[in-house]
Amino acid sequence: MPADHSARRAALRRLLADRDLDALLVTDLLNIRYLTGFTGSNAALLVTTDDVDESRTVVCTDGRYLTQVAAQVPDLRAQIARASADHLVRSAATPARWGFESHVVTVDAHVRWAGLDSPLTLTPAPGLVEQLRMVKDEHEVGLLTAACAVADRALADLVAAGGLRPGRTERQVGRDLEARMLDHGADGISFETIVATGANSAVPHHRPTDAVLAAGDFVKLDFGAQVGGYHSDMTRTYVLGRAADWQRDVYDLVARAQAAGRAALVPGIDLAAVDAASRDVIAAAGHGELFLHGLGHGVGLEIHEAPGIGQAATGTLACGAAVTVEPGVYFSGRGGVRIEDTLVVREQGPELLTLTDKTLTVV
Amino acid sequence: MPADHSARRAALRRLLADRDLDALLVTDLLNIRYLTGFTGSNAALLVTTDDVDESRTVVCTDGRYLTQVAAQVPDLRAQIARASADHLVRSAATPARWGFESHVVTVDAHVRWAGLDSPLTLTPAPGLVEQLRMVKDEHEVGLLTAACAVADRALADLVAAGGLRPGRTERQVGRDLEARMLDHGADGISFETIVATGANSAVPHHRPTDAVLAAGDFVKLDFGAQVGGYHSDMTRTYVLGRAADWQRDVYDLVARAQAAGRAALVPGIDLAAVDAASRDVIAAAGHGELFLHGLGHGVGLEIHEAPGIGQAATGTLACGAAVTVEPGVYFSGRGGVRIEDTLVVREQGPELLTLTDKTLTVV
Repeated sequence: MPADHSARRAALRRLLADRDLDALLVTDLLNIRYLTGFTGSNAALLVTTDDVDESRTVVCTDGRYLTQVAAQVPDLRAQIARASADHLVRSAATPARWGFESHVVTVDAHVRWAGLDSPLTLTPAPGLVEQLRMVKDEHEVGLLTAACAVADRALADLVAAGGLRPGRTERQVGRDLEARMLDHGADGISFETIVATGANSAVPHHRPTDAVLAAGDFVKLDFGAQVGGYHSDMTRTYVLGRAADWQRDVYDLVARAQAAGRAALVPGIDLAAVDAASRDVIAAAGHGELFLHGLGHGVGLEIHEAPGIGQAATGTLACGAAVTVEPGVYFSGRGGVRIEDTLVVREQGPELLTLTDKTLTVV
Repeated sequence: MPADHSARRAALRRLLADRDLDALLVTDLLNIRYLTGFTGSNAALLVTTDDVDESRTVVCTDGRYLTQVAAQVPDLRAQIARASADHLVRSAATPARWGFESHVVTVDAHVRWAGLDSPLTLTPAPGLVEQLRMVKDEHEVGLLTAACAVADRALADLVAAGGLRPGRTERQVGRDLEARMLDHGADGISFETIVATGANSAVPHHRPTDAVLAAGDFVKLDFGAQVGGYHSDMTRTYVLGRAADWQRDVYDLVARAQAAGRAALVPGIDLAAVDAASRDVIAAAGHGELFLHGLGHGVGLEIHEAPGIGQAATGTLACGAAVTVEPGVYFSGRGGVRIEDTLVVREQGPELLTLTDKTLTVV
């Protein structure tokens, strides 16, 4: 299904009307991509609140993107100016109350706009598009599903090819996995692949090194694929050769905690309660202090976006949010386990996008 | 040679003293890396102007980086707080005039700091560290040299292995070249590799597609390696099979323009004059309108940084700047040539870091 950018702009207009804003000046490039489909590296977008036929909603970019903006944003009027946001501010002829993305706009840009002697009132309006982006539409779920499927297939290939074997380095495994994601059609990787073997698996965000996989190691893989700008995110932890009892115990604990976190993904629940549902399982086993990070995060056009799911999170979980659930237990110097899925929150229960098996796999 | 972060901070203090600032609150992460060596993803740095023993210069990061900050920044006092910059502002006990990076700091952060009820005067001080970063020290030149050498070797391998042959796709060539850079020790690639064959070579920043290399094509490769955070940048254009006369002509023209641009890299010259030195060669051949972009840019911790070298550039070229020289001529629908080197500006003439041959090579 094609992206319905017009519907997204209509939803934004409702937020603007609630705030008595006449327009929003959007300067965050991912927000512009979300609202228009434009992927160039320089742009500004003015979404006018009272604009049923969108004749007063304008995208501005520079001359390099003349052809591209016409192709990607056929439904909006385009203007061409290198300093795109400045141009939009300067071209305002009558008094109006414009919101601007104060969480993104720099102090220098704001001072510059104030000096342009326009009749506008510029009002901070942070995070409005991010609020919309938190709830995915079906086009977005389609891209997230595709990205997660690419990651699933790449991992299956890697394991089937014996890619997780003693003697290989973390770096080799990481490059292998990334190449397989590209082979399966990823536009790119979501973030630098984490491959952590043995004691390194106890470091939550270990970067791959020349450390060699050895029999008896935990091997933790945290990776993702990008498709159409959307990011997948998944972690699986394997054991090489033969699992020791302590490894089975910690794996089982994390798997139960992860299942509890997934089960808590109910629309309207407090975000902190989702974290607690998973964390409590680990704490009850006496290892609460070894779960060093939050339970998860939103995922979409960014690998980390709203909502954050942690102990200090405020707010509730929206239906349609795409989030990760990724508890971990890390024994410093010895090894650790993290299990992570990407899911979409639904009324009928969470929709799992990362389908790779989560039972303890000895390779 | 190890990086002398202390010398960099001393140079910054001289800029601060010139501006009557008591300190600079540094929040740009690359600027913090430049000044301290810290590579974490969350930090703030307070460089106090009058601080010979650096006892009042403080780096702040969060608990995830407790070990890392001690290892990477042994010479400065570290504080631990999640909202690092807020923490530094809040902990100011006496009135002082702090500069802040107003080209990076968001309006929301600035408003938040103003609300912290500190005795500070916060003054916009944009671009000070970037000004220092424009002139590379020998540690930085060492890393740039290493990055360029990796790119040179990867390209030599690719060509020697017959990697540029009819039948391969742009995407295959790009992935091959990137893999070879990693094989030669790159920490990563500098940017998405450009491989553009045939008519695609006329698009300055073409992204690799499944287009197939064919005999008679121009094949343009624009790519770079990252080493220790520093980026190389190089473009070479080849002809597949046999070069037509028009291809020899345009190649020769761009090569002469590129040589003229390199020869103009004299300390103190107007940046626009460097651009003109190269552009004039192309204009004299009647193709000025086919050179669609600026001549070059600074390169270092970012792939694009100060100084920009273009027709509208202001300012002069500093001795020690690392820049690219990359003229191009693009015949839309037919093909184009760009030749790009990375060089360091020196009193005795520019130091060439990208050593791959620039004579027309038919592969």
